[in-house]
Amino acid sequence: MDDIIFGKNAVTEALIAGDREINKILISKNIHSDAKLNKIKDLARENGIVFQFVAKEKFLPYAEYNHQGVIAQISPIQYKDLDDFLEEEHQNASVVILDGIEDSHNLGAIIRTSVCAGVAGIIIPSRRNVQVNAIVEKTSAGAINHIPIIKVNSLVNAVQKLKNSDWWVVATDASAKDNYYDVKYNDMNFALIMGAEHAGVSKSLLKLSDFIVKIPMLKNFNSLNVSNALSAIIFETVRQKLKN
Amino acid sequence: MDDIIFGKNAVTEALIAGDREINKILISKNIHSDAKLNKIKDLARENGIVFQFVAKEKFLPYAEYNHQGVIAQISPIQYKDLDDFLEEEHQNASVVILDGIEDSHNLGAIIRTSVCAGVAGIIIPSRRNVQVNAIVEKTSAGAINHIPIIKVNSLVNAVQKLKNSDWWVVATDASAKDNYYDVKYNDMNFALIMGAEHAGVSKSLLKLSDFIVKIPMLKNFNSLNVSNALSAIIFETVRQKLKN
Repeated sequence: MDDIIFGKNAVTEALIAGDREINKILISKNIHSDAKLNKIKDLARENGIVFQFVAKEKFLPYAEYNHQGVIAQISPIQYKDLDDFLEEEHQNASVVILDGIEDSHNLGAIIRTSVCAGVAGIIIPSRRNVQVNAIVEKTSAGAINHIPIIKVNSLVNAVQKLKNSDWWVVATDASAKDNYYDVKYNDMNFALIMGAEHAGVSKSLLKLSDFIVKIPMLKNFNSLNVSNALSAIIFETVRQKLKN
Repeated sequence: MDDIIFGKNAVTEALIAGDREINKILISKNIHSDAKLNKIKDLARENGIVFQFVAKEKFLPYAEYNHQGVIAQISPIQYKDLDDFLEEEHQNASVVILDGIEDSHNLGAIIRTSVCAGVAGIIIPSRRNVQVNAIVEKTSAGAINHIPIIKVNSLVNAVQKLKNSDWWVVATDASAKDNYYDVKYNDMNFALIMGAEHAGVSKSLLKLSDFIVKIPMLKNFNSLNVSNALSAIIFETVRQKLKN
C-alpha cells in the first residue's frame, strides 16, 4: 500500500533522495508552472517516473492537506532497526528520542530541525507517539528522506541499549536543576530525550538518564513548543561542536 | 466584531490576562470535565463572564480548528504603537521583527517562543505578513496575551526608528558569514529580523542591519523552519544573558 506525500518540497526531496519507490506523481492542471514544478518534472523524467496532469477534482480527497497541487504515491518509509544503527560507527553523534509526541506538525518540524543540526537518527516508540504520516512528511519539507527513523517497541529498552553502547543520555524536564547549556556535548555520542507536549519525559526514562536539563524561561510562561525546545538545545550542541 | 479563540489553553490564558473583553464562552456538551475545563469555569465565574454548554453542532463552523470543545468570543487584540513602545524604558531588551511570515502556525509558534525567551515585543508589517487570527492565537497557546504585537506600515521606517533609539539590528540570512552565536547580545537593546520562509529578509532591511548572521547547518539541508530558527537564536541570547 503506497503512502501519499504532498507539496512541492516534499515531492522534490523524495525524488532527490531516490530511496523510495515513487509510483506516480499527480499534478493539478490548475496550478501555474514555476521553478519548483519544473524541477519536479525534470527529476521525474530523469528517473523514469510517471507524472500526470489531472483535474483539480482529483485533489478533493486531499483537501485537508496543503498539497499545492502536487502529490506523489510513494512506498512507505523504511524504519531502521536500532541494533543495525548501533552497529554503524558513530563519533560525536546524536540521536533524538521522542517520548509521546502526539502532533504530526511537531514530529515533522522535529525531523526538519534534526536534519539541519546533523542529528544521526530519530527514535520513536511504536505506540503512544505519532507515526510518520503524510502531514509529517509535508511538515518535514522532505527532511524525512535525510535521516533514519528508528521505531522501537520499548523506549526503556532502547535507552538501555544506547547506554550499553556507551551513548550518554540527556533528558529534558521543566523542573530540572541544570540548564541545557551546562552540559558539554562534545566528545561523546549522546541521545536527547524530548517529552510529550503535556506530560514531559516519562519517569522510567528520566531515571535512566545521565543528565536532566531544562531550558530556562525568562518569563513566567513555561510552555515552549517541543520542536522549538529541541531547536534551542540541539543548536547549542552544534555551537559547542563548531566552537571547539 | 469579536474574534473567536479556541482551545482550552488559549481560552484560559485570555481569562488570566484579562485585558480583552470576553463576550461569551461556549463549551460543548460532549466533552468531559477535566482540570483545565474546571479552571476555565472558575475563572469565568470569578470575572462574571457567561459560559454556555451547547450542542456539538454549534461547533461545526469551527471544524477546521482543533477547538477541543471550547471557544470564546473575544475582542480583537490591541496592536501596540511602535512610538509608544519606544517611549517605554528598555534595558537589554529584544524585539523580534517578522518580514513576510505567511504561515499562521509559524506566527503562533514564534509568539510562544518569544514569550518564553522574554522578548519585549513582536513587530509585524500590516501587509505581506500573516496577521493575528484564530489559528495564531491557538498555536501561541495563549502567549499572545503576554507580549505586545506592534503593527507597522513600513518595516524600513520601523527599523530606522529603532536605530534612532539606539537599538541594534540583527538580521538573519542563510548566506551570512557570521554565525548567530558570534554576536554578543548583552548590554544592548536589539531587534532580530526573521525573514519569510522562502524569500528571507528583504534587501532593504539587510542594508539597515548592524549584524547579519546565519545558523550553521551540519548537513547540506538548509531548510530550517522559521520558528525553529528563531528558537535557536533567541535562546542563545538568553544563554548569554544568564551566563554573564
